[in-house]
Amino acid sequence: MSLGEFDLIAKYFTRTVKRAALGVGDDCALFAAAPGMQLAVSSDMLVEGRHFLPTVPAQRLGHKALAVNLSDLAACGARPVAFTLALALPRVDETLLAGFARGLLALADAHECELIGGDTTLGPFNICITVFGEVPHGQALLRSGAQAGDDLYVSGTLGDARLALEAFRGHIVLDGAAFESTRRAMEQPQPRVALGIALRGVATSAIDVSDGLLGDLEHVLRRSNVGAEVRVDALPRSAALRGVSLAWQRECTLAGGDDYELVFTAPPGRAAQVIEAARSAHVEVTRIGSVSAALGLHLLDCDGQALANSFGSFDHFKT
Amino acid sequence: MSLGEFDLIAKYFTRTVKRAALGVGDDCALFAAAPGMQLAVSSDMLVEGRHFLPTVPAQRLGHKALAVNLSDLAACGARPVAFTLALALPRVDETLLAGFARGLLALADAHECELIGGDTTLGPFNICITVFGEVPHGQALLRSGAQAGDDLYVSGTLGDARLALEAFRGHIVLDGAAFESTRRAMEQPQPRVALGIALRGVATSAIDVSDGLLGDLEHVLRRSNVGAEVRVDALPRSAALRGVSLAWQRECTLAGGDDYELVFTAPPGRAAQVIEAARSAHVEVTRIGSVSAALGLHLLDCDGQALANSFGSFDHFKT
Repeated sequence: MSLGEFDLIAKYFTRTVKRAALGVGDDCALFAAAPGMQLAVSSDMLVEGRHFLPTVPAQRLGHKALAVNLSDLAACGARPVAFTLALALPRVDETLLAGFARGLLALADAHECELIGGDTTLGPFNICITVFGEVPHGQALLRSGAQAGDDLYVSGTLGDARLALEAFRGHIVLDGAAFESTRRAMEQPQPRVALGIALRGVATSAIDVSDGLLGDLEHVLRRSNVGAEVRVDALPRSAALRGVSLAWQRECTLAGGDDYELVFTAPPGRAAQVIEAARSAHVEVTRIGSVSAALGLHLLDCDGQALANSFGSFDHFKT
Repeated sequence: MSLGEFDLIAKYFTRTVKRAALGVGDDCALFAAAPGMQLAVSSDMLVEGRHFLPTVPAQRLGHKALAVNLSDLAACGARPVAFTLALALPRVDETLLAGFARGLLALADAHECELIGGDTTLGPFNICITVFGEVPHGQALLRSGAQAGDDLYVSGTLGDARLALEAFRGHIVLDGAAFESTRRAMEQPQPRVALGIALRGVATSAIDVSDGLLGDLEHVLRRSNVGAEVRVDALPRSAALRGVSLAWQRECTLAGGDDYELVFTAPPGRAAQVIEAARSAHVEVTRIGSVSAALGLHLLDCDGQALANSFGSFDHFKT
């Protein structure tokens, strides 16, 4: 017997809410932000073949669908509170649903982010999550606050997700361990929520790297009306990525996408606070360049020589 | 030249926000509920062929995508504040986008509901809107509050959307005027936001009719642990629907779906307040039955004779 819509919601997606006043099961969910808090809201839609491969294990897909949204909260310095899930599935596949719900809810629990509502329907596979976070009034990290003279930082390492994608595409051959570790980076990114919160009052601007470092950094520069220098060979990368050609390393770190690391700026005088924020969040951060009054994005190699910026950025309306 | 993702968002979906602190263009939107208010949140996903026909004019589709979400706020008695839009499109079709945005934003403006964020991507046509409303703490209309002895009401008329669908399917032939009016009901439903707000403190429970009266009413009865009698021939219907057979009239009103009217309950002692709420909201309401302590849903015809309930309810996981 095939599970109906309401059975499916009851079985996999209905949980007792703690923070919210009302969760799944009515026309609306109800909740209130704490006094003095602004709500940060982000919505991401994931489409099969575009945002994930058919080969992704369901549990990792559930994780990733929420992780990319939590990453947007992280970039604003917001603390996760709740989310809604809208899901279109080609058929009722209980193995997929069970794995998806497991991965999704494990990450939700880790961040105390409640599933409070949503929608399910038959249709081409599509996952749309809208996430809500809280940030003290006026303290959100924005794209628009970078100042000339600021240092430019990135968390974690860049490029592994793109490297895994290229391995799936057959453009690169990785050994077993490198394939597994980069595949995990692609399929199960770790949103930098704790770091984002710790950077409130420290960073002047932030964005998460979803479409590729250079493309995402461009958003910050444009909104802040500044330029930047990026030391390309200072970009942090994993052992797996260091094992491929320098050309691939640069491509994957600069234009990879799907990294879900934070790129942020802070005045040199706050370097110690940046280090402390990273320590408290258990994440590495690396200084990768600086913000300039002169517009434009300049790439420098390890010898301080200019590199041409021939790297693209991911655009969901281009191939 | 094809429009890229960010150009498309800038051209069609970026507007100055008034109420929200930050709208489209950063990692998150930022806004705050007014003091003493709870946020009501609802998310609906619309898939082509399932929630709308390929023949729907783009402007009406934009209207409907937001209307079905506003209808959920209406059912809770919440006042619309803001929404996010996630959109997957098979290709960049500027004619469609322009019409869609026009219909969407006209309805948003009519309800002072701001577009504050979202996502766009290539993929099978899919529209996911998450809407936020405000309701004074503890005053939301819920499905769980119906009491034995309450009167049962419905707003507007029922069944036109289903009648139009049957005409599109070729199961029914309608004359030109009837086809146009019922098609408009299907493609451009009017969310009963003002009525929902006016029913705060008056109605004991409410739900919007999206999957068919009987199916939606069942949710209220189950959550409230009560039963109901519905006088089938008292159900309000349009002139177009009164023009078809009694069997079709019953099918369309009881199990039609896509009506987006409010079904609600109120004690007989509040009948005058119900009438005043309807008057203030410029919507007709009709008493269609009553709530009983005995569980179960009983249908009565115009002679007070019991009718068998052989009517289905729409389930997005069944065909």
